[in-house]
Amino acid sequence: MNRTVFFVSESTGITAETLGHSLLSQFDTIDFEQVYMPYINTDLRAHALTQRMQEAADRDGARPIVFATMLNNEIREILQQGNCFYIELFEGFVEPLSAELGVPPSRKSGRSHAITKPSFYTKRIEAINFAMANDDGIRPDNFHRADVVLIGVSRSGKTPTCLYLAMHYGLRSANYPLTEEDFERGDVPQLVWDCRHKLFALTIDPQRLQMIREERRPGSGYASLKRCQDDIRMASTIYKRLQIPVLNTTSQSIEEISSHIIKAMRSGNER
Amino acid sequence: MNRTVFFVSESTGITAETLGHSLLSQFDTIDFEQVYMPYINTDLRAHALTQRMQEAADRDGARPIVFATMLNNEIREILQQGNCFYIELFEGFVEPLSAELGVPPSRKSGRSHAITKPSFYTKRIEAINFAMANDDGIRPDNFHRADVVLIGVSRSGKTPTCLYLAMHYGLRSANYPLTEEDFERGDVPQLVWDCRHKLFALTIDPQRLQMIREERRPGSGYASLKRCQDDIRMASTIYKRLQIPVLNTTSQSIEEISSHIIKAMRSGNER
Repeated sequence: MNRTVFFVSESTGITAETLGHSLLSQFDTIDFEQVYMPYINTDLRAHALTQRMQEAADRDGARPIVFATMLNNEIREILQQGNCFYIELFEGFVEPLSAELGVPPSRKSGRSHAITKPSFYTKRIEAINFAMANDDGIRPDNFHRADVVLIGVSRSGKTPTCLYLAMHYGLRSANYPLTEEDFERGDVPQLVWDCRHKLFALTIDPQRLQMIREERRPGSGYASLKRCQDDIRMASTIYKRLQIPVLNTTSQSIEEISSHIIKAMRSGNER
Repeated sequence: MNRTVFFVSESTGITAETLGHSLLSQFDTIDFEQVYMPYINTDLRAHALTQRMQEAADRDGARPIVFATMLNNEIREILQQGNCFYIELFEGFVEPLSAELGVPPSRKSGRSHAITKPSFYTKRIEAINFAMANDDGIRPDNFHRADVVLIGVSRSGKTPTCLYLAMHYGLRSANYPLTEEDFERGDVPQLVWDCRHKLFALTIDPQRLQMIREERRPGSGYASLKRCQDDIRMASTIYKRLQIPVLNTTSQSIEEISSHIIKAMRSGNER
């Protein structure tokens, strides 16, 4: 069974997409065709969307689902009159929240993903630049300036996780790849030890690592299962010496790994 | 007035944070202390959180707001019994959606930001790697492999936007920085012309650009207002020749710029 879903908003539509996507994940037996429709902020665009709704309904044999965060009542009414199952995601929350807070809502749209707090936005952009400049252990002498440092073998997921932490939480994130030299010594450089309190280790199942490395350098020794197993084993020994938290990226997304790191950082480390 | 807000979830809490943050943006006269609480997935953790709620209530002189996406009823009840204004964000949506779709919800938590679609997850990670390897015009000969290419003067926001497009939408994003040489020729290399159909230009107000460059290289000619004005003017002339969409990053976030790009790409380009 196939159903079309539209994520609709007057501005970026990120909120509609995030909550809508969460709700859809509760119905994993259905195949959803997901269409992202930001900036539906004129009557003309709303009418064009109702046209697309009708086309989807004809194609699927069932009306499409619309997840919307729509503050403009006029545009909302146009959409609701279309052939769709309309879900207004803000509805039911704004009024009770207003009563609890004792102030009326501003009814301004597009505030959530705009630059409403320039200092935090600047912090995020600077963190992204920091992550770019401190990827792959280029500058261990910069680790003292980082909020968080990830350590792991090649292709264990350090770079995307660092970028996610920087982009979403404004954390200055650096990473250190364990090298042949570290494995021979069975230890990491002093600059890595020095940042132990903000160090998180990434690990991954050798089979999965082999697949990822094979994509990168097919048929190489680097991508062999034996080499992957050895790397992971030697890395684990080093993590134990460092006594740092170890996160497994085999089946966890960068969002999940990042949330675990944030939680560990905010709850204070028990190490 | 100060109010504490907890974003709570059994898993990453990204949905709770995103919708909660959107709702709070409607009340911009209040100063919210925002606390992110992922992985509240045991009774013990829930009880510890009710303790923190009470501390926040004592400190603020008003009960905290809790935005939760909680599928486990037992944990939900513990939180609801705490001293807080509890808002369950899934409530009210799952049942009507279930009725419309004709299937029961799975009630499994943490599906939304987990790797439920490995092919899309892999695509995102590959897009991040692509963006890293094709930043700052390193490889114009790779532009033909990109989904989108951004062009702009130094420090106009190309890199963070490319990374956002890659991370969230799985788009292979590259960027090309306009150089002195391009300005002298009044034109860009053929490889840039060749990808004109997927090219987006970034511009920025000269005053804002000056501030950003001044942070990077204080007192330099590169950061002077005159140079910033000249760069922007010469870039605009090139954009007009290329006849490509121009987006202004002065007051728009990377989320907003990216949404505009996605919208333009999906609606088909009228150029």
